[in-house]
Amino acid sequence: MEFFFHPQAIAVVGATANPAKGGYAILQNLQNTYRGVVYPVNPRYDQIEGLTCYPSIHAIPGRPDLAILFISAEQIITAVEDCIGKGIPGVIIESGGFSEIGGDGTGMQSQLSLLAQKRGIRIWGPNCMGIVDAKAGHVFSFTDPRVLSRHLKPGPVSLVVQSGMLSAGFVVDLLSHETSGFNKICSIGNKADVNECDLLDYLMKDTDTGVIGFYLESVVDLRRFIDIYEENNRCKPVVILKGGKSATGARAALSHTASLAGNHRILSDVLTQSGILLAHDFHQMVDLCRTVEMVKPLATGPSRNIAVLTFSGASGIVASDFMEEFGLQAAELKETTKSRMETFFPSWMPATNPVDVWPAMEQHSGKGLDIYALALEAVLQDPGVDACMIHTFAGFTRVRLNLGETARLSRMWGKPVFIWVLGERDKVLSFQIEARSLGIPVYHELYRAVECMAAALNRSSTGSGPAENGEAAALPCFPPDVLADAKGILNEYEAKSILKEAGLPTVEEFRAETAPECAAFAERIGYPVVLKGLEKGRIHKSEAGLIVLNIGNEGQLLRSFHELNNKMSPESPVLLQRQVKGHLEMILGYLRDPQFGPCVMAGMGGIFAETLNDTAFALAPLTLPKAIRLIKSLKNQKLLNGFRGNPPVPVEEIACCLVILGNLGTAFPAIREIDINPLVLSDAGPVVVDATIILKES
Amino acid sequence: MEFFFHPQAIAVVGATANPAKGGYAILQNLQNTYRGVVYPVNPRYDQIEGLTCYPSIHAIPGRPDLAILFISAEQIITAVEDCIGKGIPGVIIESGGFSEIGGDGTGMQSQLSLLAQKRGIRIWGPNCMGIVDAKAGHVFSFTDPRVLSRHLKPGPVSLVVQSGMLSAGFVVDLLSHETSGFNKICSIGNKADVNECDLLDYLMKDTDTGVIGFYLESVVDLRRFIDIYEENNRCKPVVILKGGKSATGARAALSHTASLAGNHRILSDVLTQSGILLAHDFHQMVDLCRTVEMVKPLATGPSRNIAVLTFSGASGIVASDFMEEFGLQAAELKETTKSRMETFFPSWMPATNPVDVWPAMEQHSGKGLDIYALALEAVLQDPGVDACMIHTFAGFTRVRLNLGETARLSRMWGKPVFIWVLGERDKVLSFQIEARSLGIPVYHELYRAVECMAAALNRSSTGSGPAENGEAAALPCFPPDVLADAKGILNEYEAKSILKEAGLPTVEEFRAETAPECAAFAERIGYPVVLKGLEKGRIHKSEAGLIVLNIGNEGQLLRSFHELNNKMSPESPVLLQRQVKGHLEMILGYLRDPQFGPCVMAGMGGIFAETLNDTAFALAPLTLPKAIRLIKSLKNQKLLNGFRGNPPVPVEEIACCLVILGNLGTAFPAIREIDINPLVLSDAGPVVVDATIILKES
Repeated sequence: MEFFFHPQAIAVVGATANPAKGGYAILQNLQNTYRGVVYPVNPRYDQIEGLTCYPSIHAIPGRPDLAILFISAEQIITAVEDCIGKGIPGVIIESGGFSEIGGDGTGMQSQLSLLAQKRGIRIWGPNCMGIVDAKAGHVFSFTDPRVLSRHLKPGPVSLVVQSGMLSAGFVVDLLSHETSGFNKICSIGNKADVNECDLLDYLMKDTDTGVIGFYLESVVDLRRFIDIYEENNRCKPVVILKGGKSATGARAALSHTASLAGNHRILSDVLTQSGILLAHDFHQMVDLCRTVEMVKPLATGPSRNIAVLTFSGASGIVASDFMEEFGLQAAELKETTKSRMETFFPSWMPATNPVDVWPAMEQHSGKGLDIYALALEAVLQDPGVDACMIHTFAGFTRVRLNLGETARLSRMWGKPVFIWVLGERDKVLSFQIEARSLGIPVYHELYRAVECMAAALNRSSTGSGPAENGEAAALPCFPPDVLADAKGILNEYEAKSILKEAGLPTVEEFRAETAPECAAFAERIGYPVVLKGLEKGRIHKSEAGLIVLNIGNEGQLLRSFHELNNKMSPESPVLLQRQVKGHLEMILGYLRDPQFGPCVMAGMGGIFAETLNDTAFALAPLTLPKAIRLIKSLKNQKLLNGFRGNPPVPVEEIACCLVILGNLGTAFPAIREIDINPLVLSDAGPVVVDATIILKES
Repeated sequence: MEFFFHPQAIAVVGATANPAKGGYAILQNLQNTYRGVVYPVNPRYDQIEGLTCYPSIHAIPGRPDLAILFISAEQIITAVEDCIGKGIPGVIIESGGFSEIGGDGTGMQSQLSLLAQKRGIRIWGPNCMGIVDAKAGHVFSFTDPRVLSRHLKPGPVSLVVQSGMLSAGFVVDLLSHETSGFNKICSIGNKADVNECDLLDYLMKDTDTGVIGFYLESVVDLRRFIDIYEENNRCKPVVILKGGKSATGARAALSHTASLAGNHRILSDVLTQSGILLAHDFHQMVDLCRTVEMVKPLATGPSRNIAVLTFSGASGIVASDFMEEFGLQAAELKETTKSRMETFFPSWMPATNPVDVWPAMEQHSGKGLDIYALALEAVLQDPGVDACMIHTFAGFTRVRLNLGETARLSRMWGKPVFIWVLGERDKVLSFQIEARSLGIPVYHELYRAVECMAAALNRSSTGSGPAENGEAAALPCFPPDVLADAKGILNEYEAKSILKEAGLPTVEEFRAETAPECAAFAERIGYPVVLKGLEKGRIHKSEAGLIVLNIGNEGQLLRSFHELNNKMSPESPVLLQRQVKGHLEMILGYLRDPQFGPCVMAGMGGIFAETLNDTAFALAPLTLPKAIRLIKSLKNQKLLNGFRGNPPVPVEEIACCLVILGNLGTAFPAIREIDINPLVLSDAGPVVVDATIILKES
């Protein structure tokens, strides 16, 4: 990948002297920003802007290690083959006209993918705006040479975006608003070859990059993405904004698991469980990036106790409301801290957190006391304070915050400081620039300030460093007999037989065709029992009235048998089960997702499945620690931790069930979906009471 | 209230020539901005800045109709009495040192409230920054004369704030960032007399004010606030940001209802049900205000179908994600609309919504075609489009949006247009200014743009105009006998007797002391029955094992009777009930809230009460339409509308129960809390199965 970012010489295929064309802008940008050799290629010119222009790639005298292509889509395949012939290791195709327009375009893009696979060339794009490297000063893009370069300032944030706007207009917006500096901005377009995984790997190792922000419309290989992140020891933060959450897939969902999966659910669950931050808006993504880059993970574990220094009671109150929303809290200040502050506070004013410093500023106005610095030092030295948030106003001398002193105190006490600033527009801008140069994150909206603060402090405790993965799960050999001839939807009995063989705890049950068989079996296991009709192809037995619960004696059993028989097609058997008494129901699921492959799901079951919508997905196969992490990521932990006097659920046993479920599905590609609904948590442990397995049609 | 906003002459008590003091700033501001007569009052000066200064209020030759007081708290009472003596109808007390510091301050503030009540003078403040009226040009405040006036531009947004920062620094921030213009900015401080109700009433009738934004830390009289809003026919939008949501009240909560009430719950439910918008952050509040002021309620009913014109596929996708989140949707464009657009679109590009206009702009670059205008006209004339959102970039000629043409088309087709703009910082500013002058709302963050768009369009359908209130509920006369001697916590039997007398449908039940009594009653109503222990002072019977469900025969009944007896203190009776089979449980409640007075609550009951946390409050007594609105405001409407084959709940019958509950509580102030949990929805209608009534201690 190095030739994309630091090429020795670049061929520009489609260079032109016409200023209205992209090929001109690419050349201009290179001439303005790139120090290596540039070879324009275009048979229509001998020279462009003082550079010799070559009629073809072959005609280039040297061997460039990068070619930027901006010619019509029809000419691209030939040009890439010429690059291969010339021995050029990488090309950036900025032209459009490929999969984004469908039809022939899609075909040509497949050819590009194939060329990259078979012939070893790396292809970036097509339909992209290439690379802007603010650190090196390179612009390998047809972006307007006049606009971007005027503002380009280096910073630690690298972006990888699947959108031209986000690598051009948006970056101009951010740079001119002084929101952040940038390192590498990679517009990856249609991803015929180079994709987010390649760039994640490159940028995780790139010492100039402190944080990586992604805007993606598709994820090529989620599994590989997570693996790369974890193999690089999650050494720097990653923030992802995924566009297209609301796209209602044309997925045919037979199981509950599949209907819940959606396009975005699996993705966001898997990313979050790995410590990757999810963004939801463009500016917010960059705010998250710059924050988690500036505020390094704290070694001290969970950091939730915030001291707020404010010049306004109102913003202290509203900040506290937001902190609660994000799981942070106003730190309880030690008495010594309060006493320290009370030496410069008006006598009537108690020093409670949030600390309103305005009255002290008014009282000491004109005396040269730096109230912010005094209060900041007092709170930072308090062992009960993990971080400080300061509210200030730029452009009003009485509330002036000394940023240098703030940075010094923050470093000295090893505690991060976050600033919310209001003020006159130009003063706010200068303030932001100064704060950034000192490594202090600044925000203009209070909610965003607290949101970013929470993301940074939360990451400190869980989202970085080597992931605890335990041992990789070995795929066991299940006896595949029962799957040999099966297809379509397996009935409950068949499904549970497979789950039982795979090692899951299933309910004691008996398949019967006659009433006396039922009665004999019920006698053996003892009443109360449950009777279910096993009609072929029927998944939702409950809605069809094919389940009778709470059968207390033989008379009831015989009556229920006949009732069920009347509702079903002839010769459908019944299933007789021990009635399992439990204190909570969960739902477990498996899905071979068309996009993400094998996944498992756990969630609150029974009536909760449809109302709480509290479920989480993970990629399968998965290790026990990841399965435990999945269960702990469910929202309703209070139901799991023992609810209304019930015992807490056995998290590890349930996690084992998930691991087995994932292994089973992974080992047998014929399995498309599995629903375990419910998994009843009984006194004797979890029991699979009902299950469905859906196989591939062919 | 008119003398506060348009006084003929003003006395400034505490005027001074010392530029470091607030009394100087007040005078300066008046001299710079006010055209009426100004009388400085201060015994230490004969003249200040060329004005005659008077030693006392009495010494003033004329009769000012407003006095602004900025003297030490200790001198305030006397000064107010002097104002009363002089016949001055209104005073603004800007000095602090009252209830915000506690102790003597609180006492002095109570004296002020009393003076206002008894002597007819209106008192604004204390501890406030007074009034800024950008329309009239008045600044009646000690805010720094150099900062605010530099930016002051009139606009339709009036603010009422309980925070100095929000009327000074924050407004400077907003004005200098060109976020909005303002009309009246009212800093109301500690609200000894004049409060948010007075200002709501004044500003609802003020023709210069188009929308009112409130920042409040306390709400003096929620009931009156809502009444004023509705009496003024909800003729202009109101947005409220309430600080202090997370304040954990010291409320002693015995009932479920009271424990759910919280500080913020009742307030936000009541405001929302009345069509008032809730904000959560400072800038967001103003963005909501300026949007709902610019975009008038549409007469056409629900407006949810949005056409998006964008220069970037990515922002189209992310906007669609946000629209779904807020209940809006990308409009399905008519074939004729698409055909119209395809005349200027590249041939490969289908005109689907979100409409990416960039390829057309590229294709026609330099030909002078206004692609935005062509596309906007095409979508606005489509009957399936209610509103349009445009994404644009300021400072790049190729995507230039003609704002004048945009405004013209929006007016012509009677459909609002919302703009999200990126761009170079100064270009964005000019763009904002121009758009505002044309009445088009502009945003810099996409999420905010969609949030505000949704608020405006949602308001169009429900949140404005006369409220449908039906007839006022008459408070019936309940036989109060059963309440006569009662106090403390009533047991279930007593509670339900009262509810039954009040007209609520309660379960058939029988209070018994012996086993034979139980058996006889059970025989009469038929098994299965429920047996409960009625122990004195016990609320949570379930946790104490004092409920036996599902008793199927006399043997079980007798066993259960003895079990319960063993668990209870001697001579506690039992309660025998018909077991009611229902398909859903709800919880209804009543609470005499210490702050808001009588309230009712409805929510999902049973296990849902603790997991879904789906409840809503309303003020009592309430009318049937309001009770219905409350039930319809619950989140889990799918549970109510018939769930898993169940019939939909009888909303009106449940609403009647709520009305009765509210009437009962209102009529008997001795009742502090009522819990009906559960109200079982059986085939025969709603039935109160368990209930608790908590009376005041004394």
